[in-house]
Amino acid sequence: MSSSSRNILITGAGLVGSLLSIYLKRRGYDVSIYERRGDMRKEAVEAGRSINLALSDRGIKALREVGIADEVLQIAIPMHGRHIHQPDGSHAFQPYGKEGQYINSVSRRELNAKLMDLAEREGVQIFFDHACQDVDWNACQLQLRHGSDTVTRPFDLLFGADGAYSATRLAHMLKHPKFEYQQYYIDCGYKELSIPAGANGTFLLEKNALHIWPRKEYMLIALPNLDGTFTGTLFFPFEGETSFEKLTTKESVTAFFAEHFPDVVPLIPDLEEQFFRNPTASLVTVKCAPWIRGDHFALIGDAAHAIVPFFGQGMNAGFEDCSVLHELLERHGEDWGRILHDFQELRKPDADAIADLAVNNFTEMRARTADPKFLLQKKVEAWVHEQHPDKWIPAYSQVTFSPQIRYSEALRNSQRQEAIMQQVMQQPGIEENWKTDAVKDRILKGLEQGIMG
Amino acid sequence: MSSSSRNILITGAGLVGSLLSIYLKRRGYDVSIYERRGDMRKEAVEAGRSINLALSDRGIKALREVGIADEVLQIAIPMHGRHIHQPDGSHAFQPYGKEGQYINSVSRRELNAKLMDLAEREGVQIFFDHACQDVDWNACQLQLRHGSDTVTRPFDLLFGADGAYSATRLAHMLKHPKFEYQQYYIDCGYKELSIPAGANGTFLLEKNALHIWPRKEYMLIALPNLDGTFTGTLFFPFEGETSFEKLTTKESVTAFFAEHFPDVVPLIPDLEEQFFRNPTASLVTVKCAPWIRGDHFALIGDAAHAIVPFFGQGMNAGFEDCSVLHELLERHGEDWGRILHDFQELRKPDADAIADLAVNNFTEMRARTADPKFLLQKKVEAWVHEQHPDKWIPAYSQVTFSPQIRYSEALRNSQRQEAIMQQVMQQPGIEENWKTDAVKDRILKGLEQGIMG
Repeated sequence: MSSSSRNILITGAGLVGSLLSIYLKRRGYDVSIYERRGDMRKEAVEAGRSINLALSDRGIKALREVGIADEVLQIAIPMHGRHIHQPDGSHAFQPYGKEGQYINSVSRRELNAKLMDLAEREGVQIFFDHACQDVDWNACQLQLRHGSDTVTRPFDLLFGADGAYSATRLAHMLKHPKFEYQQYYIDCGYKELSIPAGANGTFLLEKNALHIWPRKEYMLIALPNLDGTFTGTLFFPFEGETSFEKLTTKESVTAFFAEHFPDVVPLIPDLEEQFFRNPTASLVTVKCAPWIRGDHFALIGDAAHAIVPFFGQGMNAGFEDCSVLHELLERHGEDWGRILHDFQELRKPDADAIADLAVNNFTEMRARTADPKFLLQKKVEAWVHEQHPDKWIPAYSQVTFSPQIRYSEALRNSQRQEAIMQQVMQQPGIEENWKTDAVKDRILKGLEQGIMG
Repeated sequence: MSSSSRNILITGAGLVGSLLSIYLKRRGYDVSIYERRGDMRKEAVEAGRSINLALSDRGIKALREVGIADEVLQIAIPMHGRHIHQPDGSHAFQPYGKEGQYINSVSRRELNAKLMDLAEREGVQIFFDHACQDVDWNACQLQLRHGSDTVTRPFDLLFGADGAYSATRLAHMLKHPKFEYQQYYIDCGYKELSIPAGANGTFLLEKNALHIWPRKEYMLIALPNLDGTFTGTLFFPFEGETSFEKLTTKESVTAFFAEHFPDVVPLIPDLEEQFFRNPTASLVTVKCAPWIRGDHFALIGDAAHAIVPFFGQGMNAGFEDCSVLHELLERHGEDWGRILHDFQELRKPDADAIADLAVNNFTEMRARTADPKFLLQKKVEAWVHEQHPDKWIPAYSQVTFSPQIRYSEALRNSQRQEAIMQQVMQQPGIEENWKTDAVKDRILKGLEQGIMG
């Protein structure tokens, strides 16, 4: 079947569905997107549910492949490192990588609107208010609810890009004789708390950083927006002594923030109002298999592999899915059976790896970023990386700034490196002697002794 | 709310749903069952999909509590042990427990029909051809498809007893903000192969045993039926060198059985026909949480915890669920919020444990039962058990013959005991010296040193 006659449907006009449609349209396919919600570009902002996104190298690489990276980066703000806020009011800055390496804060809503615009500009049709109801896998027909009607659309190829709670995945799962599936939650939920801009749109916190208030069992983060505001997000236990279930009165919220986030209180005048108005959302990980059916169906992005946001890789992983598909299209031409088979084969281990890395990074962000020993460890690693950029790449940099390293390799490498660093950091006097050849040699020797992934 | 006015609905008239209805009806509740399928008692036998069940002490205890154990045991055949068939045609018998301990082969269909009869005799109403479509959790209404109609039934309390692929669980899951869910399959599927009776209904294999043809990567088992037939089941890899995907011709099936199950060939004259007529089914494990909603909903049986059949505990675990509920009703009276809370609290760890035990036992059955060293280990354990029945109970007996030991305890104990036995079996000369005080003392000492669960 030639590409021009191949009819591709995508469920979900989110970040990945929209980008995927551009890739496929460029190759000459007939591409339509069916989106459950209305057109967000025409609707009022639904506040209180966004985590800002951190667009980084894997995502940018994918955007660049279809020539839209520069346009997208215009609505992003570079963040060069973590700005740590301690309970005593003191600050610390941890660069994410080397000079010139940074991640980019971008609003989910603005980015999504931009990608829809670009998709439509390419000639992709987006049908809103069409919710996937079911799929007839034999007849290759997508069944959608549109208002009170049920409409049916035939397809040659269907992509399920409808997110962590994918209805397309459910239709796939319920008809599959051996579908492996797993969904689990971390013990924390999240709540958006917006920090307004100062006078004339000034930033009330350092603009080019990701702000973290690490408090061991919980944390607050804040990412900058173009208008001078910051999108703050409180990650907080659902239950237990210090938890959402305990903060039920205005007074308890006021007291809690005054004690644990004193420097945040003056930044959010309507803190208590936001706290009770904005919903508390949960954070799910989804692992499943298979993602595909023959040559006519694949899950992609969060629908295939939803992860928690703590490595800033959810969107980037979904964009990288598109990039990998693109590569396979180059390699196998029109052989979609082979393309989808290889797509799953390549991406499944990487998706599993970034899911685990993301959960692990939650621990690191909320607990370890407050620990002086951890800050020192990061400094040691950065220094060794500077001296031997090819031999030692800190785990964060592998995931964030090294698209050539697969997530699954990055996970293996990071486990190995962490074991080495744990030993090195136990050395007596390491606080004074860390910038020495002896320490550096020990680290590099550790690498040689082990098997690098 | 008094029991007589409390309206309890159960989805699924399977083994657990039917038994549960009897328990609840006895306590004065108004109980109705809604079953997706037609009334199996009025329909022709759908062959080729049954694994015979092994009713054992946990299940019998539950049946006894409502006074129907003796009636049920009338349609069961005692199996005193495993009858092992080696590839060279030699046999071995491994008793399951001590003298007088046995499990009971029973046809799923006959048992289910009997339990439905008993439920109706109690006054339970069973509505057939009613498939759970959705549940309105706020209004407490069950939505069912009946033919082309959708009917709605209010409930005070709903039990989802509709099996491994529970539609009630799905309705629960899709509306729950933090539902943990996992389903996974073993690499083997199964296929029923029926062994006919001899002349005048004689048994062509030893009647009072569970027959196993262990072949490492796969196995055949056979359980006796009252009419002299045996229900055989081939557990066999889906894919790979020796697998269902390879046996695609009559000739390949004939050749395969001639080579690996020569003694079975004369027992099944229409082997090839059955092989291609009977479906290949898969084996799922389901773990999920929470099972309950407040005081008005609980999952029970396979719907809450589907397991693979290799410990013969699927039905027994479901019946034990009823038994535990019964105990909690005795303790908490009408306080269903507390009853359901404690039900989940108590049963979830046990359900997880039997799921793991069942997967482990697959390895034991297909691979280790053919190993002389393993047979010796079982003999040693049986002997120590005989001498010290309270100190050393073989894992199989804990699970099968000891309802007073929780599954979660049995799992912990079995891991500990297996570690001890692994050491003991490595002792030089163990083959000759196993029945000695030295060996026995070493085993018992191993127990004392560790922490028993």
